[in-house]
Amino acid sequence: MVAVCGAGTCSPDVSELARKTGELLARHGANLICGGLGGVMAAAAQGAKAAGGLTIGILPGTDRQDANPFIDLALPTGLGEARNALIVRAAQAVIALPGETGTLSEVALGLKMGRPVVGLAAWGEINGVLPASDPDEAVRLALSRV
Amino acid sequence: MVAVCGAGTCSPDVSELARKTGELLARHGANLICGGLGGVMAAAAQGAKAAGGLTIGILPGTDRQDANPFIDLALPTGLGEARNALIVRAAQAVIALPGETGTLSEVALGLKMGRPVVGLAAWGEINGVLPASDPDEAVRLALSRV
Amino acid sequence: MVAVCGAGTCSPDVSELARKTGELLARHGANLICGGLGGVMAAAAQGAKAAGGLTIGILPGTDRQDANPFIDLALPTGLGEARNALIVRAAQAVIALPGETGTLSEVALGLKMGRPVVGLAAWGEINGVLPASDPDEAVRLALSRV
Amino acid sequence: MVAVCGAGTCSPDVSELARKTGELLARHGANLICGGLGGVMAAAAQGAKAAGGLTIGILPGTDRQDANPFIDLALPTGLGEARNALIVRAAQAVIALPGETGTLSEVALGLKMGRPVVGLAAWGEINGVLPASDPDEAVRLALSRV
Repeated sequence: MVAVCGAGTCSPDVSELARKTGELLARHGANLICGGLGGVMAAAAQGAKAAGGLTIGILPGTDRQDANPFIDLALPTGLGEARNALIVRAAQAVIALPGETGTLSEVALGLKMGRPVVGLAAWGEINGVLPASDPDEAVRLALSRV
Repeated sequence: MVAVCGAGTCSPDVSELARKTGELLARHGANLICGGLGGVMAAAAQGAKAAGGLTIGILPGTDRQDANPFIDLALPTGLGEARNALIVRAAQAVIALPGETGTLSEVALGLKMGRPVVGLAAWGEINGVLPASDPDEAVRLALSRV
Repeated sequence: MVAVCGAGTCSPDVSELARKTGELLARHGANLICGGLGGVMAAAAQGAKAAGGLTIGILPGTDRQDANPFIDLALPTGLGEARNALIVRAAQAVIALPGETGTLSEVALGLKMGRPVVGLAAWGEINGVLPASDPDEAVRLALSRV
Repeated sequence: MVAVCGAGTCSPDVSELARKTGELLARHGANLICGGLGGVMAAAAQGAKAAGGLTIGILPGTDRQDANPFIDLALPTGLGEARNALIVRAAQAVIALPGETGTLSEVALGLKMGRPVVGLAAWGEINGVLPASDPDEAVRLALSRV
């Protein structure tokens, strides 16, 4: 189970990185876990679904309808931002794409919990993050450390 | 998604009720969510797996190896007993079999969150619980209220 | 630190039981922890404040203004019902007055976590609850087991 | 209520910054909330206590004995790293001293939740953090934005 994290709204370029990352994870047989909302989360789930993967969304609110349409298993938590800790706790590796403070908290919590954290086109400045320049490298790095 | 709750160790009779409940849920196309450990949780997951269903375990600890062997998706939370709230929050209905205080907390939280809560061979004395005398009735009651 | 749990709205009789319980806890030097809202929670905090005690409210939402006016330290959690686990986890003993499913979840979680749980005018039917018939007995039972 | 975050073990210089920050917060009448453990958390609590302030420790584990000796109110949560979200949620402002990934997660979550986050001798590179070069400036910045 690999987490893909990133902004809830994103540019087409970042969306394409996320979609490709999800696709590659599914092709390697990994389940995708994410925050279940839009942007990077939706694009990664879309890519994973298109390649036959299973997608899990850990939602901050209490309504499963908040999940993007590519989530197979929507888990509303009602925990707000505290759900970020759950995403990385449940994952065996974390791939972080460009995002803001929510994504940064997942990067930090992932490192704190000892998860391998791969930064794809982002977060390379944070000590401990494994930098990757494309989805192939990101997925390879993440899966090699599980 | 339907939660099955109950004791972490149980008699053969209760185990058979749980197994049959899991099997029927899977046959009706429902995903099973539970606490991921032994007893009722393992028997329900075993029944669901045997019928081709998908099983999710929300674990109290941080080690995914704690999950019983019939869990497809083990989500370690590191939240301890607070994970009981997550199980019922993520479920659309709750079926509670005999158990102790942990199960009672799930029954209470399920009712508090407005989930339909079915008591199978247990919990019928609690206001709001829908009593069922066998797995068929329990699954029918749960699915009819989702 | 002793938790007082009970309904968010309550009768004058139950309110008076809660107020007296809070007062006695403060007189014995115990800090009061509760859910921070109305009914039993507000009456217990009012009693504790009147006797010079310190009161802590663990709120389900994100707004500290939700706390009743007798709470010294309002801790908004944003965890919803999952905050019930925090109240009893942080307490060294639990006194439960009449309430509904939220209170029942606190009784069950308290027992599950090994806390002494005193039922004041309620919950005596639950295995493991120490029954008390008045606030003096409830506070005595709770403090003797810390 | 102001959170002071930082490493669980720290140099004498950072410890002195933390102690002074705690002292100034108490002198201004603010309650101190922190993670309750050692290093920056203990030094800040020590400073606050010495100036007559009230100190609250939100512990990751289940044992209140884990709290440092300067904590008035130890709240064991049993939530592990997820308790970091609670510290910043309960605070009206956050002062972050040097630390590692745990502290970084608190900085990120604080920003995500809209809290004013002051970086004292650290974290100035993170977008949104208010940089301070000494405890006076840190406390002034934090309290002016509550």
